[in-house]
Amino acid sequence: MAVMKKSAPSGMAAHSPRKGAVPDAEAFARDLFDEAARLSPADVGISRPAYSATETRVLEALRERAEAWGLAVRADRGGNYHFALPDDMDAGRFAVVGSHVDSVHQGGNYDGLAGVAAGLLCLIRAKAAGQRFARPVRCIAMRAEESHWFGPCYIGSKGLTGQLTGAELAAVHRDDGRTLESHMRALGIDVDAIRAGRPLLDTASVLEYVELHIEQGPMLVEKRLPVAVVSGIRGNFRHRRITCLGEAGHSGAVPRAYRRDPVFALADLLSRLDDSWLTILQKGDDLVLTSGVVSTDPRTNSLSRIPDKVTFSFDCRSQSGAVLDGMREMLREEMHQVERARRVEFVLDDELSTAPALMDGKVIAGLRAAMARTGLEPFVMPSGGGHDAAVFANAGVPSGMIFVRNRNGSHNPDEALDVADFLLGAEVLYNHLLEGE
Amino acid sequence: MAVMKKSAPSGMAAHSPRKGAVPDAEAFARDLFDEAARLSPADVGISRPAYSATETRVLEALRERAEAWGLAVRADRGGNYHFALPDDMDAGRFAVVGSHVDSVHQGGNYDGLAGVAAGLLCLIRAKAAGQRFARPVRCIAMRAEESHWFGPCYIGSKGLTGQLTGAELAAVHRDDGRTLESHMRALGIDVDAIRAGRPLLDTASVLEYVELHIEQGPMLVEKRLPVAVVSGIRGNFRHRRITCLGEAGHSGAVPRAYRRDPVFALADLLSRLDDSWLTILQKGDDLVLTSGVVSTDPRTNSLSRIPDKVTFSFDCRSQSGAVLDGMREMLREEMHQVERARRVEFVLDDELSTAPALMDGKVIAGLRAAMARTGLEPFVMPSGGGHDAAVFANAGVPSGMIFVRNRNGSHNPDEALDVADFLLGAEVLYNHLLEGE
Repeated sequence: MAVMKKSAPSGMAAHSPRKGAVPDAEAFARDLFDEAARLSPADVGISRPAYSATETRVLEALRERAEAWGLAVRADRGGNYHFALPDDMDAGRFAVVGSHVDSVHQGGNYDGLAGVAAGLLCLIRAKAAGQRFARPVRCIAMRAEESHWFGPCYIGSKGLTGQLTGAELAAVHRDDGRTLESHMRALGIDVDAIRAGRPLLDTASVLEYVELHIEQGPMLVEKRLPVAVVSGIRGNFRHRRITCLGEAGHSGAVPRAYRRDPVFALADLLSRLDDSWLTILQKGDDLVLTSGVVSTDPRTNSLSRIPDKVTFSFDCRSQSGAVLDGMREMLREEMHQVERARRVEFVLDDELSTAPALMDGKVIAGLRAAMARTGLEPFVMPSGGGHDAAVFANAGVPSGMIFVRNRNGSHNPDEALDVADFLLGAEVLYNHLLEGE
Repeated sequence: MAVMKKSAPSGMAAHSPRKGAVPDAEAFARDLFDEAARLSPADVGISRPAYSATETRVLEALRERAEAWGLAVRADRGGNYHFALPDDMDAGRFAVVGSHVDSVHQGGNYDGLAGVAAGLLCLIRAKAAGQRFARPVRCIAMRAEESHWFGPCYIGSKGLTGQLTGAELAAVHRDDGRTLESHMRALGIDVDAIRAGRPLLDTASVLEYVELHIEQGPMLVEKRLPVAVVSGIRGNFRHRRITCLGEAGHSGAVPRAYRRDPVFALADLLSRLDDSWLTILQKGDDLVLTSGVVSTDPRTNSLSRIPDKVTFSFDCRSQSGAVLDGMREMLREEMHQVERARRVEFVLDDELSTAPALMDGKVIAGLRAAMARTGLEPFVMPSGGGHDAAVFANAGVPSGMIFVRNRNGSHNPDEALDVADFLLGAEVLYNHLLEGE
């Protein structure tokens, strides 16, 4: 409970429901999203850095709301917040619903937070209506899912399930250069248990994990569907920083044959990988490739200078572990070819990786049934983005996900979740929790 | 004379020759290069920004040396310094030898400065020996040749010859964002004359222009030759900043078919241009391509985010105006292809360009003869880099260049000029000036 502070009750309407009042779900959702956005300012969009004071402030705002509606609230040794009906908080076995509260820099308000809001809404609705779920339900608001801040992703859920590695703890924050471990210790998180691989949450007590999340791609918008059930989550391997080393020279004075140009080498590498990508898709396999961060050295680069190096990130994702393994090998092989052809050298930092995760068949069936009861077409689709659900699934917890339609993707300020779609997704979750598996 | 300040005579040996002493050419050169490097500090290599106080300090150091050896010194309305034998300073017609004193950021000490040092050495040697040149000789130490600082190149010589444009005067400094015009006015330079296209130097009075310069490529090192005569100078067209606009998205959640990825688009573009480059070389034409500055937006880029844009510079050089025109068209056409294939958009800033320049046949013949008299093989080669000599040639002045062997290219801290090679080059220049055309 080290992380939790007691704060004075708020005077806001959504925080001070009348006793026994039925929550106005739409007002609750709008108010929660608005307050979280206000607490997470950025010059463009919102920013809720992992393990930051901003993240803590948003968790505290959630606690305040939950307590005002009569829920029990608890922080765990990883700094994540747990919410439950008072009678269910100490249940020995329970279903978990939840997601994360952090965001990328200049991101949107809904990636992560929507799942926490949906879980809270289900609990508050049950509390107000005096309804019981089929099985006890715990909503967990996790920290630090986004790889943006430290490189590793799913940090909060990996800590909860005993899957965070020493290498990940040593990763450094992109802005302040301090290690993940240092940031966690500053929040009073039990790093020693995490380093020892001891789960902060007994996964054997978790009957299932269900996460509502905005879809981060364009599929539901294209298909004009508000909600989907997720079949599985792409795994990935990634490098935050690969350096291509060449040789600096005057842009006009070095003939092509004498050049060791790292920018043309990078272009060559990405074009080769792009060709392979297309081939793999044509075979029916699943793959996405991204090089999101590219830069020559801003201290020395110049219009008239062949750069001595260029750095770039590389993100490879697939639902198939075999495709990921094949691409890892292909990346090495193509780098080797480019090195020989262009007399450059590629230097890779440590790889970050997450295995693909299949959602549980029974949970999928339960969610599809809940969709049907909600009056929706039970559409099932894969998840392109990774989610905490992948971590729970890989820890052996039967897991499932609900996707809600969202325009403009995620990880950008233009995320656009229609509250009506959100409420439909939350309704599916509620109907699922009432019925159990 | 607004730019020139009177300073106290220095006590250094090289500044205070005994009356009638014959200069020790090697000591003079080493001392001049050492002092200029000391006056141009950088964390790596040296930096002499165009139109900076550093550039002025180096010009002042040259003036001090020249006056100590009995030369006449004068600054022109462009802030460039002129050196001559006292009897020759007011000659109506004269040969010009010279080069520039500015450098790129974290560059080397010799790109530009070597040509000024060689000219000074010739004048001092003639003064000390009481020798007359075939025709009066003016050594000009010019400012602002490097495109690094403002984008436009050859600023000093373009101003001298009435070729600087209004668009170039409006270019902004890469560090402080102030315009070129503002920087020039701060130094008391006659911007009004420059803007009106009035040459600051009457080119009809210039019998020839000869510039000694380090070679910026690897040819002389490869061929084990200390000195060469230049046949012509590559022209160029360049863009400081081309933006490729795509659409941001989650790296895992947007299938390839829905992507508008500017980084993969840039890789595609550069690979297409690289293929054409090879084809053009195989046809026997001359071409070099460089993209020296590449960057995604450091404020928003992320490992797990398809970037919304990438910016890059583009530098295209050839000795053939027809090849430059063809590449300009090809750049547009390939961009158009990539835009259609990948649903991105390329936005180009204003093009900077310099026409290719042939060196004058008589000047080349004169320099070859001087090389032979110096006991060197009269090797002739093209210049990859652009030089002030191209500006004089394009202004109708018969021009020539002497290249001196230099390791590791230029525009980097590892420029390495052997003083023995420099002295051989200066000897060729001296022998040429004694004989005239």
